Amino acid sequence: MDPRTGQAVGEPIPESTGEQVAAVVEAAATAGLAWRATPAADRAAVLEAVADALPANAEGLWRAADAETALGEVRLRGEIARSAGQFRLFAEVLRDGGYLDAIIDHADPALTPPRPDLRRMNRPLPGVVGVFAASNFPFAFSVAGGDVASALAAGCPVVVKAHPGHPVLSGLVAAVIRGALPDAGLLGLVQGTEAGRYLVQHPAVAAVGFTGSIPGGKAIQGLINERPDPIPFYGELGSVNPVVVLPSALNGDVAALAAGFAGSLTLGVGQFCTNPGLLFVPDDDTLVKAIGDAVAGTTGGPMLTPKIREGYDEGVARLARSAPELAAGSAGGNVVPRVFAVDLDAFADGLPDLAEECFGPAALVVKYRDISSVGEVLERLPGSLTATVHATDPAEAEPIADVLTRVAGRVIWNGWPTGVAVCWAMHHGGPWPASTSAAHTSVGSTAIARWLAPVAYQSWPEALLPAELRDANPLAVPRRVDGSLS
Amino acid sequence: MDPRTGQAVGEPIPESTGEQVAAVVEAAATAGLAWRATPAADRAAVLEAVADALPANAEGLWRAADAETALGEVRLRGEIARSAGQFRLFAEVLRDGGYLDAIIDHADPALTPPRPDLRRMNRPLPGVVGVFAASNFPFAFSVAGGDVASALAAGCPVVVKAHPGHPVLSGLVAAVIRGALPDAGLLGLVQGTEAGRYLVQHPAVAAVGFTGSIPGGKAIQGLINERPDPIPFYGELGSVNPVVVLPSALNGDVAALAAGFAGSLTLGVGQFCTNPGLLFVPDDDTLVKAIGDAVAGTTGGPMLTPKIREGYDEGVARLARSAPELAAGSAGGNVVPRVFAVDLDAFADGLPDLAEECFGPAALVVKYRDISSVGEVLERLPGSLTATVHATDPAEAEPIADVLTRVAGRVIWNGWPTGVAVCWAMHHGGPWPASTSAAHTSVGSTAIARWLAPVAYQSWPEALLPAELRDANPLAVPRRVDGSLS
Repeated sequence: MDPRTGQAVGEPIPESTGEQVAAVVEAAATAGLAWRATPAADRAAVLEAVADALPANAEGLWRAADAETALGEVRLRGEIARSAGQFRLFAEVLRDGGYLDAIIDHADPALTPPRPDLRRMNRPLPGVVGVFAASNFPFAFSVAGGDVASALAAGCPVVVKAHPGHPVLSGLVAAVIRGALPDAGLLGLVQGTEAGRYLVQHPAVAAVGFTGSIPGGKAIQGLINERPDPIPFYGELGSVNPVVVLPSALNGDVAALAAGFAGSLTLGVGQFCTNPGLLFVPDDDTLVKAIGDAVAGTTGGPMLTPKIREGYDEGVARLARSAPELAAGSAGGNVVPRVFAVDLDAFADGLPDLAEECFGPAALVVKYRDISSVGEVLERLPGSLTATVHATDPAEAEPIADVLTRVAGRVIWNGWPTGVAVCWAMHHGGPWPASTSAAHTSVGSTAIARWLAPVAYQSWPEALLPAELRDANPLAVPRRVDGSLS
Repeated sequence: MDPRTGQAVGEPIPESTGEQVAAVVEAAATAGLAWRATPAADRAAVLEAVADALPANAEGLWRAADAETALGEVRLRGEIARSAGQFRLFAEVLRDGGYLDAIIDHADPALTPPRPDLRRMNRPLPGVVGVFAASNFPFAFSVAGGDVASALAAGCPVVVKAHPGHPVLSGLVAAVIRGALPDAGLLGLVQGTEAGRYLVQHPAVAAVGFTGSIPGGKAIQGLINERPDPIPFYGELGSVNPVVVLPSALNGDVAALAAGFAGSLTLGVGQFCTNPGLLFVPDDDTLVKAIGDAVAGTTGGPMLTPKIREGYDEGVARLARSAPELAAGSAGGNVVPRVFAVDLDAFADGLPDLAEECFGPAALVVKYRDISSVGEVLERLPGSLTATVHATDPAEAEPIADVLTRVAGRVIWNGWPTGVAVCWAMHHGGPWPASTSAAHTSVGSTAIARWLAPVAYQSWPEALLPAELRDANPLAVPRRVDGSLS
């Protein structure tokens, strides 16, 4: 479907049957046995070949993506580059070797009881990783996304359930990636809601990654709960991303602050998991007016799918029932950015409903009179991917710093939550419902940890040990030996 | 109850009510706010004070433990020392700082898009850790156990649900530990099955640790599935711990091999999660007879609880229905060690039932004629904590080495699975049903990871950063800075 016109594009994509899903998963499992035995340096070279193939096919890929998502050439070309960069980052992670968390304790017969030789390192999960692609990043969180890149890096085969918002593109991207893989079976692709159910419940699936809505995540968790074995489910779900403007921020550039908020709110028609949905501000007329003016100057755009559009309308209606509108932008693609405003007390009374995410360019401005009463309200917020502070005086943030790290996975100073850097230190996760596992990230180098589990080798013969655990350390991976990092 | 006599000891312990559990959890949550803000070095000093207090009270503690478990002075004094050692290990982990996984990426304005300053490290989970104590280790997997030590180390408060097998001891141990804590509320203790249910479902509980049976673990997982938020559940459940004797082992000391097996099988009346329940052997009369003779020379003993004893009888009856008895030991405490034997084909036909754990001193010997047909049977085994190989030629194990690392968390060469070293490289976990999370261990330094989640700080002011993430690295923790370990 073309989101600009609402008209169908091309022939309908057939949904995968249960038999087809099983065949794809089993082919992936078979291909995975050789892949998990492939040395990390060779897996890195394959990831780099994928990273080369994506931009080499950018022209066809962005056009296919634009036809199904209306996200435009600049954004889509940028996203292809970002996706390629993710594959390159994981190649670097593999060559570095730190992700193995290699630990060696030599035998110590003097201890009570005597300690045998023990060596451990992370190994790929024994099975297929199932990935549910997202609507809002047709490359970076879909078939060429971080879940797929990190799972292949870990040494696992992957089966992706395509997002129905870009089914044609999904097939094209899978073909490009497969061209760079040693075995096309390592990357399976299935289409349709029922296919997702079959995927999650297939015995060969060892873990599931998902980026999407809270109801979608709950549905998948429910399917996993029906399995005999409780496989890990890494879902990145809903996030309201509170932003707290502290009184000292009023000493800074208030117009720039308001413009920054409006820009972050409406970027990509607000269709980002890090979209700022709650803005706590001092009850200051100048600031509140500046925010209203900035949002009034924004324009909407076509949303990705009719379902997302319906959800936005429902969320806006929910906000409108509880709070007066502060400002509205101009209609674009029939979507209007909207901001509502409420006092802190009324917000606290309306929890948890008023802190429910409204996916799209809508937010709730919460006006407080006394900063000392904000902390206990922040404490009651649902988990978020991010929490942001605007202030000119760091000391002013001290009373709320700890609570922000308890309700969000990433805290941001004088910035905006949209924009997620792909790097070693990124953490893109957070307490429920931001993610199903607060200890894991779906972006950045440590995303690989989701698809790994340690194996310990006790008194294991040198000839059978992975190279990374042999005494000579031929691959020069970082290790902890007898308690000391080396 | 005294397991030697089956008679009640002392007054009945009252079960905790829902209100009592809530009060204990809320007191822990309150105490936890100061504890999570306590510097790691100060937390380490507290853990060392606990490690000192346990042996200082050993005389009273072992006697109380023996009255409820009949495990005897030597074993119980050893277990107290082991528990103290676990607290000491986590003090070392805290001083080392590697558990924080600290990562710094400095800002890079030259990148597209520009990268802000990002720093992340692990923080304690924001809430209370609930721990279900085990029957078979009244110290090392109970109130003074690794779950409690690692959670306190992480910076979390803990509420333990005592095991009904040693309720009096649980209260004594809690009092000893509390004497060394800065706030007694940091370690709560509740008694009774219903108390466990209230604990798991309390909103302030952020994670649950458990050591026990598969049905027990499933019941807790079911309670967690009813929560609105899917908190992590780290259960160490059932494990059959296959041992594979390869043909080359026949060239070694067959009598010692058989004696080693019989000793591991009957140690502690077989009441260990690492008890070897499956022994694959070449169909060699000398070896099979040696195994039978060795087991015939063993003696049983009192089991910990009537429920465990009933489970053993059921497991033995299940084995007896499918396989002839190879040998039986002598009755001790009314319990008889028993070994059954079956051919590989019959075993494969009887899967998965024949690979079900029988907790206690019983095992199934599986006789194979052709080593090349063993791999595909191993592939079908449920997950185990351990898998062991006996051989004199490492090359002979190569065809089964990978499958063993896929069905077990620890692989052992020419040893026995009972005996779990507490060290950096230990991994005491494995695929379901050995544990609910194959990526985590309940023994060894990395057990702390279960109670941690990262927080990323973006452009965060130096004054508000944790000391571990400040540029000067005043605590000298290991870090990855701009991609390089330092």
